[in-house]
Amino acid sequence: MSTLEARDLITDKTSIGVVETRYHTFADPPDELRLESGETLGPVTLAYETYGCLDREKANAILVVHALSGDAHVAGVHEGESNPGWWDNMIGPGKAFDTDKYFVICSNIIGGCKGSTGPSSISSKTGKPYALEFPFITIADMVNAQRCLIDYLGIEKLLTVVGGSMGGMQVLQWVASYPERVRSAIPIATALKHSPQQIAFDEVIRQSIMADPAWRQGNYYEYGQPEKGLAVARMIGHITFMSDQSMEEKFSRRLKNGNLSYKFAPDFEVEEYLRYRGDNFVKRFDANSYLYITKAMDYFDLSGGKLIPAGKDVRTRFLVISFKSDWLYPSYQSQEIVRVLKRRHIDATYCELPSTYGHDAFLVEVEDQTTLVRHFLDKTYNGYGVVSDYDA
Amino acid sequence: MSTLEARDLITDKTSIGVVETRYHTFADPPDELRLESGETLGPVTLAYETYGCLDREKANAILVVHALSGDAHVAGVHEGESNPGWWDNMIGPGKAFDTDKYFVICSNIIGGCKGSTGPSSISSKTGKPYALEFPFITIADMVNAQRCLIDYLGIEKLLTVVGGSMGGMQVLQWVASYPERVRSAIPIATALKHSPQQIAFDEVIRQSIMADPAWRQGNYYEYGQPEKGLAVARMIGHITFMSDQSMEEKFSRRLKNGNLSYKFAPDFEVEEYLRYRGDNFVKRFDANSYLYITKAMDYFDLSGGKLIPAGKDVRTRFLVISFKSDWLYPSYQSQEIVRVLKRRHIDATYCELPSTYGHDAFLVEVEDQTTLVRHFLDKTYNGYGVVSDYDA
Repeated sequence: MSTLEARDLITDKTSIGVVETRYHTFADPPDELRLESGETLGPVTLAYETYGCLDREKANAILVVHALSGDAHVAGVHEGESNPGWWDNMIGPGKAFDTDKYFVICSNIIGGCKGSTGPSSISSKTGKPYALEFPFITIADMVNAQRCLIDYLGIEKLLTVVGGSMGGMQVLQWVASYPERVRSAIPIATALKHSPQQIAFDEVIRQSIMADPAWRQGNYYEYGQPEKGLAVARMIGHITFMSDQSMEEKFSRRLKNGNLSYKFAPDFEVEEYLRYRGDNFVKRFDANSYLYITKAMDYFDLSGGKLIPAGKDVRTRFLVISFKSDWLYPSYQSQEIVRVLKRRHIDATYCELPSTYGHDAFLVEVEDQTTLVRHFLDKTYNGYGVVSDYDA
Repeated sequence: MSTLEARDLITDKTSIGVVETRYHTFADPPDELRLESGETLGPVTLAYETYGCLDREKANAILVVHALSGDAHVAGVHEGESNPGWWDNMIGPGKAFDTDKYFVICSNIIGGCKGSTGPSSISSKTGKPYALEFPFITIADMVNAQRCLIDYLGIEKLLTVVGGSMGGMQVLQWVASYPERVRSAIPIATALKHSPQQIAFDEVIRQSIMADPAWRQGNYYEYGQPEKGLAVARMIGHITFMSDQSMEEKFSRRLKNGNLSYKFAPDFEVEEYLRYRGDNFVKRFDANSYLYITKAMDYFDLSGGKLIPAGKDVRTRFLVISFKSDWLYPSYQSQEIVRVLKRRHIDATYCELPSTYGHDAFLVEVEDQTTLVRHFLDKTYNGYGVVSDYDA
């Protein structure tokens, strides 16, 4: 899919075609964002994209939220570009999130570097990039910013909020913060909280960035990124996104040049691949954003009754998905979510899919996820009193 | 055990007491080491320790080989020091490797920095540390150097060779290179070859070191170690040595100071622990050695019949041990070793121990390993025609 040209996609009936990123800025107080840390952030800009049409009842809006290094461009293609959005295989006419039926919104997160306000944005106070003057943000802060966007779009109640990995954390946070605004939720390959192993990987990633002298305590914007530290950080990440088995299938011990070099050059294809992914990441992602976002993930904790606070009457329906070979967000973490929901008598369906792709599976396993999502959305939407095409 | 004082150990009947590291140097050609790469290395010094007495038949010698950052000091205590050797819980009077019965040798590896010739040693040609002029070494080269030591000690046949992790690779290599000199072998938590995931972790470790400008292409000896890169490298290693469960048991999400900092300081105990382990490692291990040794591990490959070459009559008995929670060297890799051995009708016992300690288990799980090892050694030694205390 990723090698198709834009023109092919436009003629492809399952593609949305050419799309655009939009920006919503909420400027003065009281619209400035009050953060969990007690600090405030403003003005705040959110990058977002929308596909399909909002129905008359405003009952068909789906919010897609993204993982660590994702962006608002989740489907279709941008003018002049050939690669489609990061979940294009799941979103489009006739696809799992069917844009012929649903109004799909994808919101970028604050703290990132893909058009929304983050540490690389220009601070209105100093006229310079925030760098480490950017306030600490949490998953709840990201969701609060998204709520402002959803308000602005005039949507009272989302049909569903869906996302994988850190996207899944935002899904859970939406329910915890605004259950009355979320008819259903699809957290994929995620957790109520990071385990110490997940914190450990994030900490090594941060240390790798901060160990690079080119990081300059975050003030590198006029000099260029801490390239080496950021590349190593991303290499660590990539190992955790794949599984032992998917690496075996993709690389085995194949040599890059047919022979061992007996030098410190990359000998194996897997080494070459990691270097490529590391170097590539440096061109597209801000090092400080990586620090802020990984900390937000580590701080996230909706365990111990915080997902559905006692006494709250939550009617949100859940579809929880995990992947057998995902060792970064193992299935037991999704099962913990399900346990919490069942204990509170919340309608929850759980499925562990038998993928070998590791954590990356949520981006790759289209067929199984499509079956689950289509059926779940259909039932949720119908529950709202609209007849489904599929049942007709 | 590690907090006991030397004097306690000396009065402890299961401790060997005070021990010393010795050094064996083989200087001129033909004693210089011919390496797999085609290069030569000489003079070569090996650091080693021995405990117990060699019996009259020279039939009770056990060679212990160590993992990546290990050394020759495997048991007892050094004069003036309080911490015992790295496998003291397994080696001593009445222990698994009973020094009242067996003559135990532990040999350091070439390429390291613990008294044997490695990249931080002074080259006789230049009068300066080798740095990257040190030739590439392989696991087979390490074993060839050890064979010179065993020759020097006058031992024709080892009762057993034992080691975990990279030590296990040396065990397998001893059998592949010198089967007639190894009566039995105990490879623990190891593999016939690194998987792409294992190579990937090693490559990120190397990249982390080489990304540090203080590494200076390996020529840092007059300036000091590439501290930051080496610390990050070791932090990555430490995550892979533990299991998800052992991290949960040891740290959970406990905070270092009771509160979240909302800064990039370490918030969680696991972060503090990793930083401590990383910083500590910098004081005791040479960065270039880390590069050379991880490459040797990645190059190691005794799959496809290379462990027991066709037509060879190998009589070595095997005890293969793995640990259920070890995800760095998963049990399936030990099972591959066993499969190869069974196919060649070699006497092999396999046991997967139900530890939760991850890869570190081979250093920690004393009781289960002791039962297995004691019985195995006993049977092997008796097979040589000597009556065992245990059967008496």
